[in-house]
Amino acid sequence: MKLSIDCVPCILKTVNLASKLAVEDEQTRKEILVKAFQIISSNWDKTPIEISLEIHRMIRRSTGINDPFKDIKNKSNEFVRNLFPMMKKLVDVSREKLEVAVKLAIAGNTIDIVTVEFQDFKKNLFKTFRKKLAVNDYSKFKEAVSSCNNLLYFLDNAGEIYTDKLLIEAMLDIRNREFKNISIVVRGGPIVNDATYDDLKAVGLDDLPNTSIVFASNGEEGSGISPNSRELDDLINSHDLVIAKGMANYEVMENKRNIFFLLIAKCAPIAGRLGVKPGDPVLKYSAPR
Amino acid sequence: MKLSIDCVPCILKTVNLASKLAVEDEQTRKEILVKAFQIISSNWDKTPIEISLEIHRMIRRSTGINDPFKDIKNKSNEFVRNLFPMMKKLVDVSREKLEVAVKLAIAGNTIDIVTVEFQDFKKNLFKTFRKKLAVNDYSKFKEAVSSCNNLLYFLDNAGEIYTDKLLIEAMLDIRNREFKNISIVVRGGPIVNDATYDDLKAVGLDDLPNTSIVFASNGEEGSGISPNSRELDDLINSHDLVIAKGMANYEVMENKRNIFFLLIAKCAPIAGRLGVKPGDPVLKYSAPR
Repeated sequence: MKLSIDCVPCILKTVNLASKLAVEDEQTRKEILVKAFQIISSNWDKTPIEISLEIHRMIRRSTGINDPFKDIKNKSNEFVRNLFPMMKKLVDVSREKLEVAVKLAIAGNTIDIVTVEFQDFKKNLFKTFRKKLAVNDYSKFKEAVSSCNNLLYFLDNAGEIYTDKLLIEAMLDIRNREFKNISIVVRGGPIVNDATYDDLKAVGLDDLPNTSIVFASNGEEGSGISPNSRELDDLINSHDLVIAKGMANYEVMENKRNIFFLLIAKCAPIAGRLGVKPGDPVLKYSAPR
Repeated sequence: MKLSIDCVPCILKTVNLASKLAVEDEQTRKEILVKAFQIISSNWDKTPIEISLEIHRMIRRSTGINDPFKDIKNKSNEFVRNLFPMMKKLVDVSREKLEVAVKLAIAGNTIDIVTVEFQDFKKNLFKTFRKKLAVNDYSKFKEAVSSCNNLLYFLDNAGEIYTDKLLIEAMLDIRNREFKNISIVVRGGPIVNDATYDDLKAVGLDDLPNTSIVFASNGEEGSGISPNSRELDDLINSHDLVIAKGMANYEVMENKRNIFFLLIAKCAPIAGRLGVKPGDPVLKYSAPR
């Protein structure tokens, strides 16, 4: 998915948030905004995520701050950690455990400081949880969970990853057998509020059976797999169940096959692409050719 | 109020909306966005409204479309015209007619297609109407309405102007005597969804007793009074009751004296300036020195 002009105001909002978290000086923030727009306007053919990787690398260089969202990510994790027992109970007492877990994992995608204030997190999460899925490939998902051997799971935001843990645990429960291997993808370094290795460890996602961690690029050389890379295709093809959380992963992989996309369509361009309304929860399967 | 970096994403959102309403061609829209950013980044010391006047003049030049928001303004007017009898009744049956009318006029400032979808207009208007004023100089306002001779009224958006008519009628009712003169300020040409002479005529705001119309610049040479002009000061000083609707009028006149600002603080920079929360209704009096 190439950049739409509607992505630009949204990307710049995140740029301002990042630069404010990193530095106090207004002049520096203005210069960052101008540089960000230069990056955008000379990269119309790239995807929003590729442009963001480049922009946030520039912000790290311009401010000397490696992870401006560190505190926000920690607070997000703490916030959802406190909700975890309640969510786990919701799954445990339901007749269709996997469905509840999958809906919570999608609703978890609302935990995004870039679009929502902290005080609204809980309200938003459960409001979204109660919504009907606007694209609902759950029956295919359930079938895949039972029959697959290898799981590849692309994480999205900090905080949200507690709901990802809940979903993987529900999958193990339903299958009643381990995966031969689980590959979990996090950013190889900080970018906005995306989950990194520290978040993943804090949540205990590395303690699942037969699990290995794979790194995705945060825009820094050598930080991990890039969008549009051969490595990414190989990774996807070597697993029989692939789950990708959030809009950025959808942008990168919408044309690839055999992937379950779990996300909230937070903006008009993505909602339009999926044929849903902004704010709608989505479980979309891109079937093999 | 100078431009904040937080104004930039918001201004660009409006730019995209205007260019989409004006032309289909994506390349043209991208060029407009780039030109708009150039205007912004070489005018950091101006107010958001001054920059917007320049940007939307550029959009008219680039697209050849003089009034891309024409249909939207017509629909806004129709929408509020249909609500008018209900709002009038709300005023008529209340014990404090002027207070209800002033709160409806402030709530009318929510009718803004740039920030809200059509289907949410009614809900938003009445939700805001029921909110407590976050800045409340109503007692001074009531006193001024009774004692003044000349009214100067700066309009804001199309649609909203029905609530302005309601307020002026309630003022006439409470005073029980005409103003010596009423000067109503509209844009001298189209810009975004701001009310123009056509809207004002359709609403019948030119039929009030002793009324004259004053034009404010839409960015075109000779279209009307400019922000930061001597003419604007003279206009304000020649009236003893001055009402200014909406954020752009507040941006332009916040440092001037003896003005009642009626608005919804729709964005973080303005809300911060007023010490209120985004979405709060405000009736603020800037007293004479």
